[in-house]
Amino acid sequence: MTIEFYQLGGPPLRGTTPRRYSVFSFRTDMALAHKGLPVEHRLVKVTDKAAIAFSGQKKVPIIRDGDTVVSDSFKIAEYLEATYPDRPSLFGGEAGHAYARFFNSWADRQLIATLFLSLMLEHSRTLEPDDAAHIRAGMEGATKKTLEELAAGKDKAIAAFQKLLDPVRSVLRTQPFVAGATARYPDYILYSVLQWPRVTSPTPILAPDDAVAVWFERMLDLFDGRGRAEPAAAA
Amino acid sequence: MTIEFYQLGGPPLRGTTPRRYSVFSFRTDMALAHKGLPVEHRLVKVTDKAAIAFSGQKKVPIIRDGDTVVSDSFKIAEYLEATYPDRPSLFGGEAGHAYARFFNSWADRQLIATLFLSLMLEHSRTLEPDDAAHIRAGMEGATKKTLEELAAGKDKAIAAFQKLLDPVRSVLRTQPFVAGATARYPDYILYSVLQWPRVTSPTPILAPDDAVAVWFERMLDLFDGRGRAEPAAAA
Repeated sequence: MTIEFYQLGGPPLRGTTPRRYSVFSFRTDMALAHKGLPVEHRLVKVTDKAAIAFSGQKKVPIIRDGDTVVSDSFKIAEYLEATYPDRPSLFGGEAGHAYARFFNSWADRQLIATLFLSLMLEHSRTLEPDDAAHIRAGMEGATKKTLEELAAGKDKAIAAFQKLLDPVRSVLRTQPFVAGATARYPDYILYSVLQWPRVTSPTPILAPDDAVAVWFERMLDLFDGRGRAEPAAAA
Repeated sequence: MTIEFYQLGGPPLRGTTPRRYSVFSFRTDMALAHKGLPVEHRLVKVTDKAAIAFSGQKKVPIIRDGDTVVSDSFKIAEYLEATYPDRPSLFGGEAGHAYARFFNSWADRQLIATLFLSLMLEHSRTLEPDDAAHIRAGMEGATKKTLEELAAGKDKAIAAFQKLLDPVRSVLRTQPFVAGATARYPDYILYSVLQWPRVTSPTPILAPDDAVAVWFERMLDLFDGRGRAEPAAAA
């Protein structure tokens, strides 16, 4: 059965490919590809809460698999792993499940918390006016700073973000992927954290020879270049 | 065959139990207990490099297992896992091995880097004079600050350390141990990072109702209270 996958989307940055820009949905996108499941993509605007009201909450990603509706990227990953155990494992066993859980929280609370607010101004410029206004109001309300003030901290945020990635660099010295010999859910988490800046901001976040940047290029190649097909922000 | 295990040690803080205080050796101590291997403990002073010259390097922990000598706590864990695969697994498979590798680097580069220097003054006071002078010279040379200056940052360091543990708290909401349903090497890593302050400083590092503090009490109980038998620093 085909799984319906709801995520944020909008008009093409250029060309004809609709752009997608939900950091958490990038995780679900790769998890679905990892499991090799047939997917129908549903792109919704950040302001269009009616389109996802069926899920009983207001955030993407959401999947509908037959009669089952699951929201929250990590819960979706756990649902897919439990429901499709014969497909390639997303976690690699119980200790790997714990790894994914830890890595998910680490990435959200440290990596995203350090970097993303400083890129919101650039992000808002890629959106349609109503979505841009929605993002600005939400972020400025939460932080009590303007997007322009937040953007002024970008260089410092990028430097701090790069330093936080040291444990990943350490892991990549002895194995090709964050999760070991093959990419698993921790890889998709970090992929999402780098894919969002890639489609959002022309500012390079990592030096090209950084081991994490080299790993990210490998991630963009997975599943027939699924990540690379997403247009990068223009310089 | 009995494994010889070399770690830092010194005279009892009180009573008759020699005290042990090497953060990395605490990991090896628990890894050996996890594998249920017979161990002969060899305590060496930090200034006594001659005692460990046989290992070809200058740091503990070191194990000698028959003709094999292994130093570096993580390499020792990998050696034990590869050499004693029929004993309880330290990693829980390949993804768990990757988790341990990531967690090890995260703990060293973020947790220890944030907290430990501010506790070195108290630590030095628990050592014999020659070892205390050795620690002071090493730390002050590396940081260009006195131990007293470093200690002045203790409250701020403890607050930052507590915040860094957020991803651990998140994991402990759904599972009893960092590695999942049972304690594995990531648990022993974090145990070591809290056991060192416990035996070093009378200052509480965590609030008693912190989920990480509650988990740490469970860790101190493992293997017949092996960790709890180590005398805590007196207030």
